[in-house]
Amino acid sequence: MAEVYLDNCATTKTDRHAAQIALELMERDYGNPSSLHKKGLEAQLRLDRARSQVAAAIGCGAGEIVFTSGGTEANNLALLGGAEARRRRGTAIVAMSTEHSSVLEPLRHLEAQGFRLRLVPPLPSGEVDADAFVDAVDADTILAACMLVNSEVGVIAPIAELARRCRRKSPGLLFHCDGVQALGKTAFSVQSLGVDTLSVSGHKLHAPKGVGALYVKKGVRLLPLLYGGGQQRGLRPGTENTPLACAFGYAAEKAAGEQGRNAERVAGLYEYFVNKSGKLPGVCMNSPATATPYICNLSAPGYRSETMLHFLEQQEIYVSNGSACSRGAKSHVLTAMGLAPGRIDSALRVSFTAENTTGEIDLFFEVLAQGMERLVRSRVG
Amino acid sequence: MAEVYLDNCATTKTDRHAAQIALELMERDYGNPSSLHKKGLEAQLRLDRARSQVAAAIGCGAGEIVFTSGGTEANNLALLGGAEARRRRGTAIVAMSTEHSSVLEPLRHLEAQGFRLRLVPPLPSGEVDADAFVDAVDADTILAACMLVNSEVGVIAPIAELARRCRRKSPGLLFHCDGVQALGKTAFSVQSLGVDTLSVSGHKLHAPKGVGALYVKKGVRLLPLLYGGGQQRGLRPGTENTPLACAFGYAAEKAAGEQGRNAERVAGLYEYFVNKSGKLPGVCMNSPATATPYICNLSAPGYRSETMLHFLEQQEIYVSNGSACSRGAKSHVLTAMGLAPGRIDSALRVSFTAENTTGEIDLFFEVLAQGMERLVRSRVG
Repeated sequence: MAEVYLDNCATTKTDRHAAQIALELMERDYGNPSSLHKKGLEAQLRLDRARSQVAAAIGCGAGEIVFTSGGTEANNLALLGGAEARRRRGTAIVAMSTEHSSVLEPLRHLEAQGFRLRLVPPLPSGEVDADAFVDAVDADTILAACMLVNSEVGVIAPIAELARRCRRKSPGLLFHCDGVQALGKTAFSVQSLGVDTLSVSGHKLHAPKGVGALYVKKGVRLLPLLYGGGQQRGLRPGTENTPLACAFGYAAEKAAGEQGRNAERVAGLYEYFVNKSGKLPGVCMNSPATATPYICNLSAPGYRSETMLHFLEQQEIYVSNGSACSRGAKSHVLTAMGLAPGRIDSALRVSFTAENTTGEIDLFFEVLAQGMERLVRSRVG
Repeated sequence: MAEVYLDNCATTKTDRHAAQIALELMERDYGNPSSLHKKGLEAQLRLDRARSQVAAAIGCGAGEIVFTSGGTEANNLALLGGAEARRRRGTAIVAMSTEHSSVLEPLRHLEAQGFRLRLVPPLPSGEVDADAFVDAVDADTILAACMLVNSEVGVIAPIAELARRCRRKSPGLLFHCDGVQALGKTAFSVQSLGVDTLSVSGHKLHAPKGVGALYVKKGVRLLPLLYGGGQQRGLRPGTENTPLACAFGYAAEKAAGEQGRNAERVAGLYEYFVNKSGKLPGVCMNSPATATPYICNLSAPGYRSETMLHFLEQQEIYVSNGSACSRGAKSHVLTAMGLAPGRIDSALRVSFTAENTTGEIDLFFEVLAQGMERLVRSRVG
């Protein structure tokens, strides 16, 4: 039976051409971009091109892109580096309580270092309560963070509004946006969002794992997390990962270019999915209708996520019980939304890419229904 | 004309099989190791294997390996994370002044944070003065760092002796060894070296750029530099870079397995190189005879490194003027050795891999001699 991969928010299959680019940079244009000779220069030119591609995909200048080892490092660089650079200006930090662990954990670390952290809960729908977020900001706030597309339920945050209103209350604050699940899934530009920093990750959009980037608005000051040979203007030293950066550049350009067409296709998948879900008694959607069509979080109360996930995988259907990065832990996002324990414990995240099909959705619901027939209903529900 | 790549300390061509492994992990086994389903488990098993391969190559347990984005991150994690974890025990740090920038710069950052940094100069030969190093350590010393193979002149440090003697003076110190240029070039095990942490990098031994590892001896405590999803026991969170980690695992195993045979071959190249250099008047070796045969640092005083490097590259011969990571800057290693300015300004680093040939060395000296005939001799010499 063919594999049905519906866990594209955890990671994606690398695009064939992106992988070939990585291979080319490993075997042929393998120079160190810092080398002064031609092989170094060739690598540098390839890297510059990749930087321009990522920049174009999110609407900034190439000089505003810092390549990192992934989304986690990009988020950490913005938050830890941003807070350290503003330590003398204030001590308060505001973020959504539904952020990804690579945002929440660095913020908790800053809290342990003496910063005051205010986590804003979402509305029961999972959507961002803009008034509550802005209310949490005061003149002492140096850092605010909100993700553009929530990784578990797909909620899209009103970043432009938040950034504008937060700045009115604390003009010097750094507004960071985790854009890891947004690039390729929703049209945006850092310009129109008005953020200071924004993180993106390669492996969420068909580039390989191990590369990401941070947009750092011109003039915004961050302290580096690593020190060394001065690469990337000292903000992120270390020999640049040219193979993956170039694969990422290609994939970002492709994702941005095809965003409209893909969104239309995935909106169709989403409609089909929601319709199907409505026909299976005992199943309810957790993602609000305003969420990105790429992420469908649903529950079959009474059937524990992990048990159902393993039932599905026996038929080679792959979904997630939440964010891959939190593994078996209870979803902090669904908990923050105030869902009943039975819905939280039975949640499944289905996440699409434009290559998925309605046939795969049929198969998912068919096997889900089988699972609901055959598996023993737990008492949690 | 065929390319003559003699800059293998800057970076190496990725081994074909290692690159294929990376490709396989991008296109087929592309699961996220944190995913609970089978595709995640497959990725996790591949990652475990890679970890065991790197561990075996340096003689430690798989649980003592932390994958990083490269040598720079591995060095930073050991030094910044090690110093932070020992802040209450003492304030002094000792290192060679000839360390790589990814060791020196984090140490300078720690110095700016209040630690006392003592940098020990080498002997005029470039070799480590063990007595001077140990003399610099006192009971307040919490961190000592020395690289195993110097990246510019190839000097091999007596790490086991240093670690043993330093511990006698400060039992609780963390001894870090930068092993980036050592793995594959010289036989060693972290056990026999007796170090607490040791960094290695993939792209110096025919794995791709963008992956490295840090050995952290069981029981040794470091604070992480990044915070997030708890991957790698929280010491290095972020979705693991499975394609490059697996390519690195293969390359490390291969490099360790072929180390003896390759060393013999490269010793032959070295003999041939030194003999040839002796026959070209006006050229002198800067690397001592005790250095690794993989790195030959030499000068043609009067001919500026950069000018000669570009002359050589016109014939597709690639060498370096020092460490790629310092680009055009004056070599801090040759400066610390006390060489005359004319020798420093004309230094070239030739670095081998086992695939290089005596024919390539002939070509290098032929074109170097042409350069010395045709280029205008500068006044520096």
